[in-house]
Amino acid sequence: MSQIKMKELPGGVTTPPGFTAAGVTAGIKNGKKDVAIIYSEQEAVAAGVFTTNKIKAAPVRLTMQHLESGKARAVVVNSGNANACNGLRGMEDARAMAALTGELLQVPAEQVLVASTGVIGQPMPMDKVLPGIRRAAAEQSREGGPDAAAAIMTTDTVTKEAAVAVDLGGVTVTVGGMAKGSGMIHPNMATMLGFITTDAAIELQWLKKALVHAVERTFNMITVDGDSSTNDMVVALANGMAENRVINGEGLDYTAFCAALEAVCRKLAMAIAGDGEGATKLLEVQVRGMRTEQDARLAARAVAASNLVKSAVFGKDANWGRVICAVGYSGAEFNPETVDIYIDDVQVAQNGAGLAFNEEQAAEVLDRDHVVFIIDCHDGDCAATAWGCDLTYEYVRINGSYRT
Amino acid sequence: MSQIKMKELPGGVTTPPGFTAAGVTAGIKNGKKDVAIIYSEQEAVAAGVFTTNKIKAAPVRLTMQHLESGKARAVVVNSGNANACNGLRGMEDARAMAALTGELLQVPAEQVLVASTGVIGQPMPMDKVLPGIRRAAAEQSREGGPDAAAAIMTTDTVTKEAAVAVDLGGVTVTVGGMAKGSGMIHPNMATMLGFITTDAAIELQWLKKALVHAVERTFNMITVDGDSSTNDMVVALANGMAENRVINGEGLDYTAFCAALEAVCRKLAMAIAGDGEGATKLLEVQVRGMRTEQDARLAARAVAASNLVKSAVFGKDANWGRVICAVGYSGAEFNPETVDIYIDDVQVAQNGAGLAFNEEQAAEVLDRDHVVFIIDCHDGDCAATAWGCDLTYEYVRINGSYRT
Repeated sequence: MSQIKMKELPGGVTTPPGFTAAGVTAGIKNGKKDVAIIYSEQEAVAAGVFTTNKIKAAPVRLTMQHLESGKARAVVVNSGNANACNGLRGMEDARAMAALTGELLQVPAEQVLVASTGVIGQPMPMDKVLPGIRRAAAEQSREGGPDAAAAIMTTDTVTKEAAVAVDLGGVTVTVGGMAKGSGMIHPNMATMLGFITTDAAIELQWLKKALVHAVERTFNMITVDGDSSTNDMVVALANGMAENRVINGEGLDYTAFCAALEAVCRKLAMAIAGDGEGATKLLEVQVRGMRTEQDARLAARAVAASNLVKSAVFGKDANWGRVICAVGYSGAEFNPETVDIYIDDVQVAQNGAGLAFNEEQAAEVLDRDHVVFIIDCHDGDCAATAWGCDLTYEYVRINGSYRT
Repeated sequence: MSQIKMKELPGGVTTPPGFTAAGVTAGIKNGKKDVAIIYSEQEAVAAGVFTTNKIKAAPVRLTMQHLESGKARAVVVNSGNANACNGLRGMEDARAMAALTGELLQVPAEQVLVASTGVIGQPMPMDKVLPGIRRAAAEQSREGGPDAAAAIMTTDTVTKEAAVAVDLGGVTVTVGGMAKGSGMIHPNMATMLGFITTDAAIELQWLKKALVHAVERTFNMITVDGDSSTNDMVVALANGMAENRVINGEGLDYTAFCAALEAVCRKLAMAIAGDGEGATKLLEVQVRGMRTEQDARLAARAVAASNLVKSAVFGKDANWGRVICAVGYSGAEFNPETVDIYIDDVQVAQNGAGLAFNEEQAAEVLDRDHVVFIIDCHDGDCAATAWGCDLTYEYVRINGSYRT
């Protein structure tokens, strides 16, 4: 098997050639950046993955429509208002955002994707949004990536950007991305937005396939399937400027591209999990030895999503019983009598029963910023990893008064 | 339709004739009552409903075996240790608890049901448990119900008892019960135990059917299907001492008995929800206008289980967007454009979009001890109610240091 040559790069959505971006303060939130634009100099092949929630925000529905052509030239995003549950007016406002962005960037409105995140059920303050879009369109530049990443934040405490370069048959292809998401303790209602750019030349169906595969193993492992917010979306734009041989099927190039895309998505996903609302720690749950990858994913996600596990991690309590209990109700098939559990390198359970482990050692590994649970079911060859964070007083404080 | 004549009574498991109980301090926990016994003078018809978790604690597995006969004479319960994930020793200990209880009460060990609740994965301190059983067996009496209800508590702050009398063709039948459960914020890992006694004469298959029906509409509406702990169980013992015409089929008597059983289960279930770990409020979610009862249940449970809704209730924030979002990801079929939402009598959304409601009025109803959300989907005739509680700093404190 040939080696994939991949290198991490600084930056985010404007790291791949041909993409510019901006982030400005439109006044939707209190004095923070809240409108972002990403612009592609060339028409880009574009694909998206969207929330499965029955309630879909207007910008989600509009972007789904616009992506039917498989092409896009720009993305406009606002934070501070989700534009969800606003009736007909919501759709009109989302369309107006696309129309103005298209007019300013001189691209068809149908090639502008729209995303929103923030409070549900309050009309969009278009008197602020539209002037914001004007300024963002005027300011967008190759250096605008970090500002755009800042403008899509809600309760996020840090911007989330990633970029890698990968070798495709002697041609360097770059993949960049930015994301937001912070209410990840109970991820089903906290908007997760991800925007991926690349100069790869790739056919639509293969970009779609690569995106779904990457999202399944990264962003979807910090959430619970089917439990997404009204506004979640991940979109990818590929402008072809790397002039690699167009990816139009399985093979080394597709494999390498997938690896690069997954690396960017994983870094963004882990950043979201670690920046969970009120979180003090990144929680990583590795499940091994399952009969199917699906079983491994179910189990890993159930543990990472358990409030009791998260509370125990916050309290540095090596309460492995809550971990095995979550595996038990996850729906995964496994043999309860062959389960070993480790917290980092401290084994705490063997064959489904407790070990007399060193509590001090366990407390020490639980005290780290990145806590790793390893659950080995010795029942097959499949594995999966999920990410989450601890549940803290601060989470309750943030969510007890988010709207006010 | 003939009216059901039902009356609430004081007391719990010893309110129906023929049942005695006791609760003693065995030293498993720190100085609080921790071993309970319920004894039936007559052989009782007995049925149970158990956790669907793949990891089942030893007492759950033993009680399932013992109930295969459909008969029981006694129940022995301990709190402070779940006797889950203790390997072969766990089963030996559960058997020893049944054996000693049977010996002391002079009933077959196979007619003793065993339940445990507490920490997972720590061996049972049998040197304390067995002497505790001896004392409980010696002390059991018609007045022992409240002590038994106290002895099954873990982080519960109040005992949970209920009893009703119901008229069955001129004969008064009594149904009593006690329950424990408090980690209800994320109910899947917090043990819920329920014990129901009645002097009704009823055939096993009809007791089973009535119990499943009552549990589905009460205890299961404070939890999420399939997400139960390693130790959950609800058992019902019917000793026949009321000498009513034996219930052996559908009809008025069965309907009246079901109503009484459901009333006892509902009172216990609501008491569990309101006593959620750290809770300051009981949250009631009524969903109406759904096409099927199953859809209504899915929607009601999703709202009651949402951390973001629970946090908003704690913060007295009328954030109805989180409510409709939870309905959206619940899996229920409904039309997003006909959803009305009320907090108590304050309407906050109409046809899936926000209303300009009075924030002060909303804050006032959110300030009550019992907060009611009403979600009317105008899409059918089916309804369901779920119960939960708010998510508070105290929940995190309790669960950050439960084991220590």
